[in-house]
Amino acid sequence: MIAVKDSVHDHIEIDGIGADLIDTPALQRLRRISQMGTVTYVYPSANHTRFEHSLGVYHIASQAVEKLDINGRTAETIRAAALLHDVGHGPYSHNTEAVIHRHTGRYHDEVLDLLETGAIAGILQEHGIEPTAVAELIRGDGRYGQLISGELDVDRMDYLVRDAHHTGVPYGTIDHERFVRELRYVDGELVLAPGNVQTAESLLLARALMNRAVYNHPTARISRAMLARAAERLIETGAIDGTGLRRMDDHDLLVTLRSNQATQHIADRLDSRSLFKRAVWAELDDAPDELLASEFDDRAALETEIAEAAGVDPAAVILDVPPSPSMAESTSRVVVNGEIRPLSSQSALVRALLTAQRDRWRFGVYTPEESTIAVGKATERVLGLDIDHLVTDDHWGRPATLSEFTEVGDS
Amino acid sequence: MIAVKDSVHDHIEIDGIGADLIDTPALQRLRRISQMGTVTYVYPSANHTRFEHSLGVYHIASQAVEKLDINGRTAETIRAAALLHDVGHGPYSHNTEAVIHRHTGRYHDEVLDLLETGAIAGILQEHGIEPTAVAELIRGDGRYGQLISGELDVDRMDYLVRDAHHTGVPYGTIDHERFVRELRYVDGELVLAPGNVQTAESLLLARALMNRAVYNHPTARISRAMLARAAERLIETGAIDGTGLRRMDDHDLLVTLRSNQATQHIADRLDSRSLFKRAVWAELDDAPDELLASEFDDRAALETEIAEAAGVDPAAVILDVPPSPSMAESTSRVVVNGEIRPLSSQSALVRALLTAQRDRWRFGVYTPEESTIAVGKATERVLGLDIDHLVTDDHWGRPATLSEFTEVGDS
Amino acid sequence: MIAVKDSVHDHIEIDGIGADLIDTPALQRLRRISQMGTVTYVYPSANHTRFEHSLGVYHIASQAVEKLDINGRTAETIRAAALLHDVGHGPYSHNTEAVIHRHTGRYHDEVLDLLETGAIAGILQEHGIEPTAVAELIRGDGRYGQLISGELDVDRMDYLVRDAHHTGVPYGTIDHERFVRELRYVDGELVLAPGNVQTAESLLLARALMNRAVYNHPTARISRAMLARAAERLIETGAIDGTGLRRMDDHDLLVTLRSNQATQHIADRLDSRSLFKRAVWAELDDAPDELLASEFDDRAALETEIAEAAGVDPAAVILDVPPSPSMAESTSRVVVNGEIRPLSSQSALVRALLTAQRDRWRFGVYTPEESTIAVGKATERVLGLDIDHLVTDDHWGRPATLSEFTEVGDS
Amino acid sequence: MIAVKDSVHDHIEIDGIGADLIDTPALQRLRRISQMGTVTYVYPSANHTRFEHSLGVYHIASQAVEKLDINGRTAETIRAAALLHDVGHGPYSHNTEAVIHRHTGRYHDEVLDLLETGAIAGILQEHGIEPTAVAELIRGDGRYGQLISGELDVDRMDYLVRDAHHTGVPYGTIDHERFVRELRYVDGELVLAPGNVQTAESLLLARALMNRAVYNHPTARISRAMLARAAERLIETGAIDGTGLRRMDDHDLLVTLRSNQATQHIADRLDSRSLFKRAVWAELDDAPDELLASEFDDRAALETEIAEAAGVDPAAVILDVPPSPSMAESTSRVVVNGEIRPLSSQSALVRALLTAQRDRWRFGVYTPEESTIAVGKATERVLGLDIDHLVTDDHWGRPATLSEFTEVGDS
Repeated sequence: MIAVKDSVHDHIEIDGIGADLIDTPALQRLRRISQMGTVTYVYPSANHTRFEHSLGVYHIASQAVEKLDINGRTAETIRAAALLHDVGHGPYSHNTEAVIHRHTGRYHDEVLDLLETGAIAGILQEHGIEPTAVAELIRGDGRYGQLISGELDVDRMDYLVRDAHHTGVPYGTIDHERFVRELRYVDGELVLAPGNVQTAESLLLARALMNRAVYNHPTARISRAMLARAAERLIETGAIDGTGLRRMDDHDLLVTLRSNQATQHIADRLDSRSLFKRAVWAELDDAPDELLASEFDDRAALETEIAEAAGVDPAAVILDVPPSPSMAESTSRVVVNGEIRPLSSQSALVRALLTAQRDRWRFGVYTPEESTIAVGKATERVLGLDIDHLVTDDHWGRPATLSEFTEVGDS
Repeated sequence: MIAVKDSVHDHIEIDGIGADLIDTPALQRLRRISQMGTVTYVYPSANHTRFEHSLGVYHIASQAVEKLDINGRTAETIRAAALLHDVGHGPYSHNTEAVIHRHTGRYHDEVLDLLETGAIAGILQEHGIEPTAVAELIRGDGRYGQLISGELDVDRMDYLVRDAHHTGVPYGTIDHERFVRELRYVDGELVLAPGNVQTAESLLLARALMNRAVYNHPTARISRAMLARAAERLIETGAIDGTGLRRMDDHDLLVTLRSNQATQHIADRLDSRSLFKRAVWAELDDAPDELLASEFDDRAALETEIAEAAGVDPAAVILDVPPSPSMAESTSRVVVNGEIRPLSSQSALVRALLTAQRDRWRFGVYTPEESTIAVGKATERVLGLDIDHLVTDDHWGRPATLSEFTEVGDS
Repeated sequence: MIAVKDSVHDHIEIDGIGADLIDTPALQRLRRISQMGTVTYVYPSANHTRFEHSLGVYHIASQAVEKLDINGRTAETIRAAALLHDVGHGPYSHNTEAVIHRHTGRYHDEVLDLLETGAIAGILQEHGIEPTAVAELIRGDGRYGQLISGELDVDRMDYLVRDAHHTGVPYGTIDHERFVRELRYVDGELVLAPGNVQTAESLLLARALMNRAVYNHPTARISRAMLARAAERLIETGAIDGTGLRRMDDHDLLVTLRSNQATQHIADRLDSRSLFKRAVWAELDDAPDELLASEFDDRAALETEIAEAAGVDPAAVILDVPPSPSMAESTSRVVVNGEIRPLSSQSALVRALLTAQRDRWRFGVYTPEESTIAVGKATERVLGLDIDHLVTDDHWGRPATLSEFTEVGDS
Repeated sequence: MIAVKDSVHDHIEIDGIGADLIDTPALQRLRRISQMGTVTYVYPSANHTRFEHSLGVYHIASQAVEKLDINGRTAETIRAAALLHDVGHGPYSHNTEAVIHRHTGRYHDEVLDLLETGAIAGILQEHGIEPTAVAELIRGDGRYGQLISGELDVDRMDYLVRDAHHTGVPYGTIDHERFVRELRYVDGELVLAPGNVQTAESLLLARALMNRAVYNHPTARISRAMLARAAERLIETGAIDGTGLRRMDDHDLLVTLRSNQATQHIADRLDSRSLFKRAVWAELDDAPDELLASEFDDRAALETEIAEAAGVDPAAVILDVPPSPSMAESTSRVVVNGEIRPLSSQSALVRALLTAQRDRWRFGVYTPEESTIAVGKATERVLGLDIDHLVTDDHWGRPATLSEFTEVGDS
């Protein structure tokens, strides 16, 4: 048995398959994948890694498995999936995920190939566990997949608390012990025991507040977009391919960006935190339908068009359009009056979160500070926006257009 | 200058009028007034007092005054009001407030009489501060009253964090430093600086979550109702009057309840945590209009009627009807696009809180465990309720009627 | 199973005999016994109670029992002892312990009489557990007694962390999870596993630092001495006897002190924090041998003599002489090279703690502020001290003689 | 004014020269220098950086400057020095310091060259501050140098608390607010105000406990020695020089180690945490005098000799000999009876720390696991040690020779 001291859960005990997996290269690599990528530009204390998060998820999964009275190989499979659930992440975690997906067809939770080779494959075999069984759980499939990746999964029970601990932002501090205590399987579905509407609400609220203050802070979005752009360029130059990118760690990627002529200028900016600024920051209602419907190539074309209209280098314009806020985060199930019901049907608060998510949605156009005015006006023309309308305070309290942050951090 | 070590704010520095007021009997008495009254029956660690809370409020007020650049006598008056804002509380704080108000006409924030006499009066005079000026701030009146008692007051910035620290429930952990930093006066109104819709939301959400999990936990409500009933009985027996009750501390009241024949049985129950149980726990839609409109005397008559119908002692039936959930908690003001707007107009989440508050409203009828069925049925007849309808899971996950908790605590 | 939310350990699960014992009057009474007595005069946040501490000790004992693989009735007996270990405390815990011992012959850990009667007796019997077995563990006797009351007991693993949490003083924050993990029985002795010299040291250091900054802070000692004096006077007046005092709670004692003519003046002082001040605060080398050897009656006589010499009321002089610092706190056993050794033999730090304890020892004479000079001089004459020698800075940075604190708190 | 959210100090406000310096490349580089280097192999949550630490030191320095009533340019110089105090660190902070010193003659606090060039030079000039003045403070010279680098410096007030926060080890949790409050200048010397012997002790104790449990944990020492060895090899191959190494960040160094044939095998081991193990782990009394007196070249020769005797590659033997424990850590000054005295003269505990430091001193010989026995025996012969004597439990509870940890972490 191994005992690891963790800043969030104190001692984490690891044994069985966990103890064997811990020293595999695929897992040790996560020591060099930052959990939050460029969020550290906003919250400088947020330097934690996917490795410590994986240990935390393993820890909560072990507790959940015990509370739910799951035993034997099923339990070992769940614990293995918990520990391995993030081995598919590329450098800077989610920051490069879209790029990798475009070039490999794989999201971070599609990891069967990584489980079927190398040290992990051997260990799974020794324990009589099929890689496919683990990969399915990591994808969120099946009865127990909900526990690893679902609305009530052990993943977010760890990351909300851990991200709060490391950023200093209190909103993520959920009562994770209560969640684990209240999990139940009813008719094959993972739900919270009766009397936990508020418990479920608190999880969604924590996530919504953390989304805005942390994960989607404008500065985090800008730097993330710059990093993704640079990674894309790297692939375009042929220096690496998507599969290579997927297996890099933060160190590899950053040093490679510095050494490649096509990406050096972005690496310089990231190194010295000379980030692009917002030329446009606009609400959902201002976003033309074709923009919302656009795909990667369309957006690249728009960037070029805006750059030309503004008389700047195409490399100096980044268009950042998040997915439409249509995906409900409210499919958690609670038991009320003996029936399993979707949380959103029980909670006005959760329904309001969906509205709020729409209200807070923004698309942005980013460019070096000296070009913000030109690029803002060019975007206006190209996309047919009403730029005056856009000159408005955004929810971070600063003029949303033609403006910028100088802060190192801001909550 | 005095420096006090505090479990929430670390060192609190007190000087000027604060240092003089700190050792007055009226303030030292708050060491013996528990902050949360009977909530400790649910959360056994919640034994903090109005004294430490008052120091915390003074601390935040001092920071706010500095940030807002308020100086001189105005600043001293605000600091004095912050330190003194709770001297009007009776024993067990809010638990006895309604009883005291009924008999003295005073709520806990009506303290002019206490400021005009004794040591406090002398100190205020020495510092050239009018008792009326301090009393007004404590009532929430005027430009600076909003800072002491209003939607964005320093009172709740302390109590949410402190109550979270002492109960162990994380929901109250707001970012209180950010609040203080973002306060502004615009046209005489205290608002949050532009870009703080989320900051404001987080305060209301924290309060809503704490309300349900902590302040209005059913067991807290039951024990609070028992304590209030006992205090009322004490006055009826002539043992004390309202004014006397108002100046007691927790120790006085508890020992007096034990020694008075009319209240001894409740004191025994409180001492040994043999609390009444819920005979009825019903939603707003089930509450007859006349019940909602009823006053103290009407409810006392109903209690007697129910007791007779159930064949139990009138002392064994307590009817607990909270105020209608009409009072908006959403009058915080935020600045959006240069205009001061009510938070509720800007936030779907805050509007949802109002709905949620209505959904969670419950009235209860409490009685000793052995009488819950009889009293439940009697209430059904007397109030014309449909008892079957009431047999439902409540949001704490337990049958709402004819049931009970055995837990010491529950979040 | 009962789950209680605790501010230190988060959720505490209680079942078996624990769940039955929790609602007994003897245990519920501990809700009204403050853990630290008058320490709250120094650290105003320190209002926690013996009840929450008892739950914490139960929690750690449950973990220890599991780690040590102790099962069945033995385990239940240990858990019962952990939960009940403080039921023998009088009001304000240790503050009244010497008074109670003088009049009843019982220290707080001598509780057999309390286990053989009332609700507790019945519950023990139902579970087939002998009251004597529980009482022995609470006394620290036998193989498992070391776990409840010994150098490595679960009692201090809880109180150090809990007292740190509530005072805000960080020194007590030991790594309690590590302690529980490293406990072993070797040849019937409870020891720490090999490699834990530092773990053991950290416990003693934490205790030493907390002793000075918290438990024996001069203001805490003064107020404690005043409370003990008042309790003694109460018994002398015949208002209560030692057995009665032992069963009071804080509320009872305080209200009784207020209502008794002989003690009212001390109650007034405690209520308004008008504490006595130090007239003398002297080191071990300055303490006459006969003072160190004196018993209660001798000291009472000395107090009278000093009062007469100073021309003040005998009630205005309190002589506070702590036990000689001879008791080693270093009998913890560690395993080094396969041998059980006393920690002090392995640790220069622990040996230094013994020296430090001697260096920090002080006896005090306390009196109202206006009499400090007269009483200081009178003490000089009566005890034959060299008062000039005493006018020195003490380790709290203030003149040790004829001086005083005005602070509310000081760490 | 910039406000940064920090996980340790909450909001840190930066203005004046601090706000100008924050975005210089030299400071932003510290985002990619880990605070604790290889300690993360023991405590996986310890991924914090020199950047966040520098902000924390700036924060405490600002508080100290205010408390000490230091103003104007002196204050700005101190704040600048606090923010810049770590810009001289090489990759992985102290881990590469000896290598860099050997090749450049500079320790991490010798930074004048870095202050006289680039963006920093310009900013200092704008503020009318001499680079030499800042560099002197960083070296610990002069009246105010003690504040930046001395026994009571703001550096350790931040790092002890921050390292505790991120490792999860509680020992470093000092009362840093109290330190800042109690600092005084007496006769040009920085001391703690009277009454702070214990405060000073607590700092040294915290550091001693953190040293053993964290900074000098055997696994941290082994991985640190491996990293230093690899960096040395890199310079030997001519791939970089000392000056180049000094300006790398963690990412640069790690990627360069991977790509250089001479260091690839160590990079592989570090990437996959296949660390060397201890072949020898011996006490001070067992260390031959010539070993203690040896310099770098002598040790390199010994390593080769041992490798030959063991029949292994010279790259597979690392000799790790810490400096002799002669440097007192106890030169803190306290004021007792109006005199400035060295803390060690006032504190038996501090004197004991010196002894303890000697007791805990170990030199190690590290090698791949499969060679531990051969290398252990070879070391025995080469250094003339008594190997049987060495086969002993060390204070981490594991056989000190021929053994190893498998744990990810251990406190």
